[in-house]
Amino acid sequence: MEKQELLYEGKAKKVFTTEDPDLLIVDYKDDATAFNGEKKGTIIGKGVVNNRMSNYMFKMLEEKGVPTHYVQELSDRETVVKKVEIVPLEVIVRNVAAGSFSKRLGIEEGFELLEPTLEFSYKDDNLGDPLINEYFAYAIGISNRKEVERITEYAFKVNEALIEEFKKIGIKLVDFKIEFGRYKDEVILADEISPDTCRLWDLETNQKLDKDRFRRDLGDVEEAYEEVYRRLGL
Amino acid sequence: MEKQELLYEGKAKKVFTTEDPDLLIVDYKDDATAFNGEKKGTIIGKGVVNNRMSNYMFKMLEEKGVPTHYVQELSDRETVVKKVEIVPLEVIVRNVAAGSFSKRLGIEEGFELLEPTLEFSYKDDNLGDPLINEYFAYAIGISNRKEVERITEYAFKVNEALIEEFKKIGIKLVDFKIEFGRYKDEVILADEISPDTCRLWDLETNQKLDKDRFRRDLGDVEEAYEEVYRRLGL
Ligand SMILES: Nc1ncnc2c1ncn2[C@@H]1O[C@H](COP(=O)(O)OP(=O)(O)O)[C@@H](O)[C@H]1O
Ligand SMILES: Nc1ncnc2c1ncn2[C@@H]1O[C@H](COP(=O)(O)OP(=O)(O)O)[C@@H](O)[C@H]1O
Ligand SMILES: [Mg+2]
Ligand SMILES: [Mg+2]
Repeated sequence: MEKQELLYEGKAKKVFTTEDPDLLIVDYKDDATAFNGEKKGTIIGKGVVNNRMSNYMFKMLEEKGVPTHYVQELSDRETVVKKVEIVPLEVIVRNVAAGSFSKRLGIEEGFELLEPTLEFSYKDDNLGDPLINEYFAYAIGISNRKEVERITEYAFKVNEALIEEFKKIGIKLVDFKIEFGRYKDEVILADEISPDTCRLWDLETNQKLDKDRFRRDLGDVEEAYEEVYRRLGL
Repeated sequence: MEKQELLYEGKAKKVFTTEDPDLLIVDYKDDATAFNGEKKGTIIGKGVVNNRMSNYMFKMLEEKGVPTHYVQELSDRETVVKKVEIVPLEVIVRNVAAGSFSKRLGIEEGFELLEPTLEFSYKDDNLGDPLINEYFAYAIGISNRKEVERITEYAFKVNEALIEEFKKIGIKLVDFKIEFGRYKDEVILADEISPDTCRLWDLETNQKLDKDRFRRDLGDVEEAYEEVYRRLGL
């Protein structure tokens, strides 16, 4: 399978059409952005880590009953995926307070939530991906009850599976963002699962092994991505 | 029944204890605030309108099966209510885009929502009453599933009843904020329902008949409150 046209280029990936109209090739870049694109940089090797880690997680999730866009890894940075219509919701699940949650609620980063939370942001860069809820999505016609129910079910299932997977390698899953897509009347997990999209803390030391090292200028950014990659045995 | 101690004074009401530990007397003020207390003023006669209008709506809602804190009107500004522990959620229902919803989603004020929305803000002045959702409430221990389900059911029921009530007097219910309280193992509607807490637009002209006249310096503030009062036949 070969790349044809560049369909679109996002902040972290390029997406190409293929000879099969149902399939795309995603090509993971080393570009890093934060704060809605205000901060820019490069994390050498990130594209490889994110591609291979995403594929590893998607395969694991498929086995646990969560349908995903994953089809086939082509190279270190390139993967064939099902072409979906992305649901314009950033689906965020949290186990521990951090980031915008801590800020919004005035709760210390690291506070163990009494139960996992689910939230939806409206995926719109111009609006800054604002927090919304399911009723807002229905009210402006960007999703419907059936889809939101399915997404909710999958999101918590992904959380359970990822918690377990990361625990095995000494990592605490603090929170993560996933995206879903519409594919032939189904909703499936799309986009990526990587240190760009998860907060991952070392279980023993609480050391951050994710994009917060870049966002907050903590140093050892590449090393953090490599460490997760290494622990996953990739 | 007589006022004893001032229990607390809010931005719009004073709350007094009574000889009955289960009952309070609320005393509605003419004080007006907006933008989390940044803007301050007086709306002459507002206390009377808000007291009598709230009581009218609470009585109507009780008849329709929504339990409320209302007990007895004592005077133009004073009412006996059940003493509740306020659930720290501002419960907002919307039928038409306006205010923070329009801003958040970049949607023109006046857009008729495809269906009514429900949202929860965490009632905390220091945090600026941030938008949250039910999972956040569970995660930090401020409510539970049973309570949120009951609140959700009542909130939409209040919306249906208020839409109908306002329609009769030529007013469109754009949105409103209500508060609930815990009373003897039940959750009941508390606080107030008034032009301070509802967006009310004239059905024909879309003229604003609510606190937005004060917030946005539109003039004829007292007249708007009086107009709603008059149309309700109070
Ligand atoms: N299977 C898929 N089909 C179509 N689009 C996808 C798929 N998976 C991810 N995308 C989209 O590809 C785009 C590029 O990804 P990325 O660079 O991460 O974008 P962004 O700048 O929005 O983070 C995003 O809009 C993402 O939603
Ligand atoms: N039945 C009740 N029992 C106890 N407190 C109540 C009841 N109804 C309303 N309150 C509370 O009374 C306080 C005063 O009201 P208000 O002046 O509107 O306050 P605020 O400044 O928070 O808007 C508020 O904290 C409100 O939640
Ligand atoms: Mg992305
Ligand atoms: Mg109030």
